[in-house]
Amino acid sequence: MAHIALDPELPGIVGLLKEYPATAQRLVELAEHMLRVDSPGLSMAEREIIAGYVARLGNCTFCELSHAKIGEKLLGKPGLVAQAVCDLESADLTPLMKALLRIAGKVHAAPKSVSAADVEAARRLGASDREIHDTVLIAAMFCMYYRYVDGLGTLTPDDPSAYDEGVDGTIDKGYVGRLRDLLES
Amino acid sequence: MAHIALDPELPGIVGLLKEYPATAQRLVELAEHMLRVDSPGLSMAEREIIAGYVARLGNCTFCELSHAKIGEKLLGKPGLVAQAVCDLESADLTPLMKALLRIAGKVHAAPKSVSAADVEAARRLGASDREIHDTVLIAAMFCMYYRYVDGLGTLTPDDPSAYDEGVDGTIDKGYVGRLRDLLES
Repeated sequence: MAHIALDPELPGIVGLLKEYPATAQRLVELAEHMLRVDSPGLSMAEREIIAGYVARLGNCTFCELSHAKIGEKLLGKPGLVAQAVCDLESADLTPLMKALLRIAGKVHAAPKSVSAADVEAARRLGASDREIHDTVLIAAMFCMYYRYVDGLGTLTPDDPSAYDEGVDGTIDKGYVGRLRDLLES
Repeated sequence: MAHIALDPELPGIVGLLKEYPATAQRLVELAEHMLRVDSPGLSMAEREIIAGYVARLGNCTFCELSHAKIGEKLLGKPGLVAQAVCDLESADLTPLMKALLRIAGKVHAAPKSVSAADVEAARRLGASDREIHDTVLIAAMFCMYYRYVDGLGTLTPDDPSAYDEGVDGTIDKGYVGRLRDLLES
């Protein structure tokens, strides 16, 4: 049971968004802006892979599956995030994405450990300032989201297929669109 | 030097907010909503103490001083956050604030470690669902902000007095007001 009163039918962050709609608006607009808005650099799939990677590093199954599955579906590569966390070098990712996930992992573990050499390695593979910025901020955002979800003890569905509807809904409508549906339901 | 091109005169998150204004809008609206908006429960000072406490746990001097100093000034208790991180039990805080900072510390270190007993202890001292929710989210937010600031290697002024103008400006104008001034400057 969650640490505060939430709709017991709504898992993970969904129950929080429903119960605290003014806060939800801010959290979801940040996600929409960083994960969905058409900006130069990283694709939507790559942004979701970074999000899911950090969530898995933090052992937050709800956030991991909600985001990793979006990136994996868009790329047609199921299991990619688990593979990357287990062995980044041999994962089925571009050299640039490996360099960015190395940075994201350091942002998660100890942000001051991101070195000039880490950033230079990503630049040599084509990363722009914008891509480095977005990688660090998306990693940092998921250090927030997963702590919000797990710090309040929200419900985590164990069955991976329980996430499919949310994944399809987010791909289709985005985060702001899904929040609108949730608050109107 | 920061890992990406930023105005070298602007320290910490300020240079990031100036360089990435659309992202800044989302990040600052979340801070304004959670730290400043008149909502039931925690005072503005208490919210800033939680923020500064988590930033200090994360060794982010820029975020610590920017927020701890606001709470300490509003409460008239300089050095309170450093004291709380060093020895929470003997810090000059209410029993309720100690219970909430204990939760905030767990959100920072390992969010799944927040236990029903931790939450119950806060409730017995008068915490509402709203106060527990806001404590967890503010703690989680600062796990994001300090990673954004330190993951990108931004400038940290060492002299504590370098933070005074920002502290007074934030108390006076709030986060959204200060961002408006920054983007117009």
